[in-house]
Amino acid sequence: MRDALAHVAAELSDRGRTAGGEAQEVLEAASLMAQDPALADDVATRIGQGTNGERAVHDAFEQFKTMLIALGGYMAERATDLDDVSQRVVARLRGVAAPGVPESDEPFILIARDLAPADTATLDLERTLALVTQDGGPTSHTAILARSKSITAVVGVVGLLAEVPDGTRVVVDAKSGIVVLDPSDDEVEAARVEARTRAERADAPLTEGALADGTKVPLLANVGRPEDAVKALELGAEGVGLFRTEFLFLDAKEAPSVASQTDSYTRMLQAFEGKKVVVRVLDAGADKPLAFLNDAEEENPALGLRGIRALRASEQILRDQLEALAAADAATNAELWVMAPMIANQEETEYFVALGRELGLKVVGAMAEVPSIAVLADQVMAAADFVSIGTNDLTQYTFAADRMLGTVASFQDPWHPAVLRLVKMLGDAGIEAGKPVGVCGEAAADPALAVVLVGLGVSSLSMSPAAFADVRAELLEVTLEQAQAKAAAALLASTAAGARDAAAAA
Amino acid sequence: MRDALAHVAAELSDRGRTAGGEAQEVLEAASLMAQDPALADDVATRIGQGTNGERAVHDAFEQFKTMLIALGGYMAERATDLDDVSQRVVARLRGVAAPGVPESDEPFILIARDLAPADTATLDLERTLALVTQDGGPTSHTAILARSKSITAVVGVVGLLAEVPDGTRVVVDAKSGIVVLDPSDDEVEAARVEARTRAERADAPLTEGALADGTKVPLLANVGRPEDAVKALELGAEGVGLFRTEFLFLDAKEAPSVASQTDSYTRMLQAFEGKKVVVRVLDAGADKPLAFLNDAEEENPALGLRGIRALRASEQILRDQLEALAAADAATNAELWVMAPMIANQEETEYFVALGRELGLKVVGAMAEVPSIAVLADQVMAAADFVSIGTNDLTQYTFAADRMLGTVASFQDPWHPAVLRLVKMLGDAGIEAGKPVGVCGEAAADPALAVVLVGLGVSSLSMSPAAFADVRAELLEVTLEQAQAKAAAALLASTAAGARDAAAAA
Repeated sequence: MRDALAHVAAELSDRGRTAGGEAQEVLEAASLMAQDPALADDVATRIGQGTNGERAVHDAFEQFKTMLIALGGYMAERATDLDDVSQRVVARLRGVAAPGVPESDEPFILIARDLAPADTATLDLERTLALVTQDGGPTSHTAILARSKSITAVVGVVGLLAEVPDGTRVVVDAKSGIVVLDPSDDEVEAARVEARTRAERADAPLTEGALADGTKVPLLANVGRPEDAVKALELGAEGVGLFRTEFLFLDAKEAPSVASQTDSYTRMLQAFEGKKVVVRVLDAGADKPLAFLNDAEEENPALGLRGIRALRASEQILRDQLEALAAADAATNAELWVMAPMIANQEETEYFVALGRELGLKVVGAMAEVPSIAVLADQVMAAADFVSIGTNDLTQYTFAADRMLGTVASFQDPWHPAVLRLVKMLGDAGIEAGKPVGVCGEAAADPALAVVLVGLGVSSLSMSPAAFADVRAELLEVTLEQAQAKAAAALLASTAAGARDAAAAA
Repeated sequence: MRDALAHVAAELSDRGRTAGGEAQEVLEAASLMAQDPALADDVATRIGQGTNGERAVHDAFEQFKTMLIALGGYMAERATDLDDVSQRVVARLRGVAAPGVPESDEPFILIARDLAPADTATLDLERTLALVTQDGGPTSHTAILARSKSITAVVGVVGLLAEVPDGTRVVVDAKSGIVVLDPSDDEVEAARVEARTRAERADAPLTEGALADGTKVPLLANVGRPEDAVKALELGAEGVGLFRTEFLFLDAKEAPSVASQTDSYTRMLQAFEGKKVVVRVLDAGADKPLAFLNDAEEENPALGLRGIRALRASEQILRDQLEALAAADAATNAELWVMAPMIANQEETEYFVALGRELGLKVVGAMAEVPSIAVLADQVMAAADFVSIGTNDLTQYTFAADRMLGTVASFQDPWHPAVLRLVKMLGDAGIEAGKPVGVCGEAAADPALAVVLVGLGVSSLSMSPAAFADVRAELLEVTLEQAQAKAAAALLASTAAGARDAAAAA
């Protein structure tokens, strides 16, 4: 039995190395689960009590899984990964092949209850046209890996599985999350045109972001590590709109030194010589708690001491980070902007801007994620050099609906006029004050929404570099006046779908 | 040792009966802790292992306390109660008097680290002018009991204890949460005037709520049980602005029957013949989860499946409640309005209004607690018969700051212009649509804020009946035009304190 566990651990680890990147991290985590000594002991105890090996593995994993689910959120979504490990160990004990994706000679759309990370990571990308799963939320591995490998995927489609016999013709539109069964010829043709358009856009020249009338809309990259810079530049990034700095802190027992931070920031800024780089200071708390900064006992961590609040309560950590950023700025030729997450009002803005200036930073701003900042946009804009809208958190708080929670997932749509109206308040205040307002949430990566955001007064868009080509092409289709007309139409709708339709029709 | 536990349990229970009401519930809970057999066993085990009795009691209670604190939120605040029980048991074992409030012949202001529920409940109200504690949040028993007994109290005043020797002159202003040490003669005189004014107001005739120019502003009561109706009417309630229906559900394993609900609602409506009664349908979730309605595994329950979302997911429970309300309405002569909590947009409003009408209700509305509803006020107002603003939740969500969490408690101030601006959006939309907009959160009980709310377009105020006298008097001081001028001044401030000052000066 311990052999079977060790074998599966090694196999997952191997697959990880083959797949590389984010998939490797996921598979390494699964491999570690298979190597968990407590789990092996539990299986052994069960066998000692007379349970047969397969049953003992099943039961021990089930208990571990129940524990993970009880922990909720991110850990609960990891429970699926455990099923895969368990099934592989049982298959090994039985001497049969590990479960997996059926083989096919023809290209196919894969519809499944859920995919194990090992399967998603090693999918035959030549043949898999798209993935549709019944389980899994936006933070499930299927979703994360599909995004990182640019696989067309729609997750969390309830009740689909039973309805679709093998060989059914299906159109999957991952952009709008729509799956069409037995499409009409017209629907198929429309999907073909859409796919062709996207392919053409991907091959278009890497021009600067701009509207049809020449209005500049810089296309900036969201990056999580200095290593991501190369790929972003290859795809035409005009700078960085959101450099997340959590990677420096997440695995650390205490905050990293000023010297090691300076080194990381310097590498990042060197890659973007002459270009703008917007750095977000440490955003800890909620789904990314840090032992040295956050209180683990919060009832509602998303409404807790996070972002600027946590940094302010541990000011030395913030001072160190700002000091390192200023040192990296002095040593390089990029244009460094620094912003803080979760700023709620003018007083917090003034605090952060004053601290940034004291430590030698030139451009200091606020992220707009908390609804109050939009309502107070005039006041915040007077104190900040710029504002960058994080549409994911702004949407979650505006609707008081946890963006990680499946049962309220339908609220998490930045197309909803409630969110667009708040963006407009910020956009209007930015124009009035003559200060830039960017967007760095997922919303900026949706081409049609990107146009509407520009129409609402947003002056730059930051996104995953994979989205540049589509957004670049879409912006070139409209003038500022047309974007504003689309925005005005969307604001009057009463649902997210209505806003999408109204913008398209305008 | 078991004798000492039993004795303390009985003593707490006795004190509870003497105190009555909410204090009794609190003391009964403490008594139950002393009777916990697991705790007694733990103490016995420790004694069996050679620990002396007092130490064993202390250690066993400490462990229980650690567990409660780990549970967080409400349970963590109960940890203080456990200290009192433990100290009483130890005192009993030692044969000394139970710890408590020092005796005094003169009237005094009591400053303490925290008060045990047993002490708060049996305080000599003739002599205790005010309470100030260092520990305890808004949901601590000290705060709850002080409110229910109308004791002037300020809780959570950090660092005060060390600074105040016995005999210090102190002014406590519970309304604004300010404690002044060694006040000047002017400050004492101002406090005397304020106290006299409040006393006069309490004796003023029970007129209907109105401004100086005769504009009606009905004063409605927030009530939690049909029994509360009598006291509300005695204090001049013109109706009920918020009838919470959770009491019917909270102790139940499943939802109560239509018949038993009809009975409760009928009793309530009978007490308010000819008057308006606004009933809120079941608001479960977040800090009040129900096993048959809510999923206990939510990472952020305040952002979870709560309010109308939970009811919609278990629609039969909602249908039963609306059916019972319609039956009670048909059997009585009160004017029944029904509203749903946590409504976020027009679609949810339409859903609830349609269901209410289908089941025979005449006036159906929405509670405004989620920020999106204010941003979408025009759309929601088109679908609802009325809107009632729950300022506590609206404030918490607008600032994305848990209102139960001490570390972000400073955000929980409905005077902040961010909240006032959202109220204005709702007020404006109500006036535009010719539909009533009430307030039923704590904000309505603050006399100066009540005036500002009316100036923002709010047409009725619902509060704990204890606040009627103050609010009634304050409203009579201003015309609608003056209230609007105060509101306009408050909207331009950038902090809650600034808004308070601006309204006072206008």
